[in-house]
Amino acid sequence: MHTVEQYIDIINKALENITYPAEPSGLYAPVKYQLDMGGKRVRPLLALMACDMFGGNINNVISPALGLEIFHNFTLLHDDVMDNADIRRGRATVHKAWSENTAILSGDAMQIIATQKIAETPVEVLKEVLDLYNTTALEICEGQQYDMEFEERDDVSVEGYIEMIRLKTAVLIGCALKTGAIVAHATSAQADAIYKFGVNIGLAFQLQDDYLDVYGDPAKFGKKIGGDILNNKKTYMLISALTIAQGKEKERLQTLISREIDSPEAKIAEVTSIYTSLGIDKMAKDKIEEYSLKALQYLEDIPNSDELKKFAHSLTTRQL
Amino acid sequence: MHTVEQYIDIINKALENITYPAEPSGLYAPVKYQLDMGGKRVRPLLALMACDMFGGNINNVISPALGLEIFHNFTLLHDDVMDNADIRRGRATVHKAWSENTAILSGDAMQIIATQKIAETPVEVLKEVLDLYNTTALEICEGQQYDMEFEERDDVSVEGYIEMIRLKTAVLIGCALKTGAIVAHATSAQADAIYKFGVNIGLAFQLQDDYLDVYGDPAKFGKKIGGDILNNKKTYMLISALTIAQGKEKERLQTLISREIDSPEAKIAEVTSIYTSLGIDKMAKDKIEEYSLKALQYLEDIPNSDELKKFAHSLTTRQL
Repeated sequence: MHTVEQYIDIINKALENITYPAEPSGLYAPVKYQLDMGGKRVRPLLALMACDMFGGNINNVISPALGLEIFHNFTLLHDDVMDNADIRRGRATVHKAWSENTAILSGDAMQIIATQKIAETPVEVLKEVLDLYNTTALEICEGQQYDMEFEERDDVSVEGYIEMIRLKTAVLIGCALKTGAIVAHATSAQADAIYKFGVNIGLAFQLQDDYLDVYGDPAKFGKKIGGDILNNKKTYMLISALTIAQGKEKERLQTLISREIDSPEAKIAEVTSIYTSLGIDKMAKDKIEEYSLKALQYLEDIPNSDELKKFAHSLTTRQL
Repeated sequence: MHTVEQYIDIINKALENITYPAEPSGLYAPVKYQLDMGGKRVRPLLALMACDMFGGNINNVISPALGLEIFHNFTLLHDDVMDNADIRRGRATVHKAWSENTAILSGDAMQIIATQKIAETPVEVLKEVLDLYNTTALEICEGQQYDMEFEERDDVSVEGYIEMIRLKTAVLIGCALKTGAIVAHATSAQADAIYKFGVNIGLAFQLQDDYLDVYGDPAKFGKKIGGDILNNKKTYMLISALTIAQGKEKERLQTLISREIDSPEAKIAEVTSIYTSLGIDKMAKDKIEEYSLKALQYLEDIPNSDELKKFAHSLTTRQL
């Protein structure tokens, strides 16, 4: 087993060592730019860790792990076009730095480059890893579709929201872990268990993201606090609040999310205060704990899982 | 061996038999719409034909053949967004019928569905077929990038144009034939030869498209005659004309492609007349003949190629 830092170092070096054709630079420069933005490299890290846990050779999982990271970054690139987002990790998004057409086409190329990396999986497990990858990739598109539809709807349930984030975020965490397990020739029961662990940790991870947008420490959290509130983003926080609020408090919340903003600070403060009076902070924390505990049950028969448990705990209790 | 009609019937039935999840319908309805638009099904047809020629079981190549057709239709979908095209095969394009975001995301999903079909290739040749597919898919993105860049440039050479259409159009024709050969366990020399045949036929096919836009019979040609001229599209015709025109004729052509259009009919008539006086029609026909003859050389050691020769001839001399 390696440390988290060692895995990340291996991944970043391997990402840097990918060579792209020099031409057409208008296609490949945005791909490199998107991958150079950094990020936590959570997905490839989990693939390496799982492979290691099951006694596999981590060199065999580096390529598919990179494939998952490149696919993830492709989804961020196209999501930024669809959401018309200007900034990602402190830098201009590809469609702002170049153009929308460049963002569409470079994203398409990234999806193919991701599949090329998946194709480098040891051939005896290629079919299994490729099928898992394709299924997961399509689920992520489904999740993005629901996410966009939810922004136009005002009847989204908490269950509907959980299903959306399962598709958009959680299945790729499960897929990364299962990919490591498959490459290490774990049993299919073990591969399925670690997948389910990953999906539940993925749900907790996304809910922690929703929580931090409201209750995060501005000094630690990477993004600006209250971004979701200003965008009226239908997170777990807002959907839960709209579900349980009553009478005047509900009316006020609906007014706040439907009218033009006078003062961003005042809106964030008032919505946060409604959340707190409804106990949404506590509900979110409980939900995160529920999925974290559920996840851990799937690790009962999994060997060498201490490092993974520690890392998963850090993900779901993170402050940044 | 089967007839062309039989192959197309097999492909269309197999395409219809693909089942998509019912939800989210906002994601899958545009995918079905795009695939229902029809088209000549040239790529999967060639995959089946090649497999048959080399004595393979065509049932084994149906899935990867569909993958290539779905990938091709995905590129049309995203190209229509990038080109802001309203109409495709007489119907509203996906981004017009739905929205741009829907077109981006449904296209992404199609690319994954295409890869799922490739993943159904018999496992003993999966790695080889998948690698060919990924290489080709990335080349097609490169071709689209050059195509977009060329529209902003006024120094495109005939050689540069040929390289662009090789990437954007011809390699997929070669890939389809080679996929059929690989699935049929042809020798690698045979697979490479039929690939090169396909690339040269693909070049001739695209040049015929450029030719027909100017000199096609309006009663037969599917698209409106002169569309490329009105859009100042840098086809083989325009690039060749700009290369060989001299003096006042060159000035007049440059004026025609740079200024606002008064009368579309007059512009088409005048540009066509310049092309004809420069002998561009003859040059195009010679070039098509050159690539067709070059293609045929690669079939010398290939068995059962009569049907393929006939079909290739029909593609490169087609009037519609």
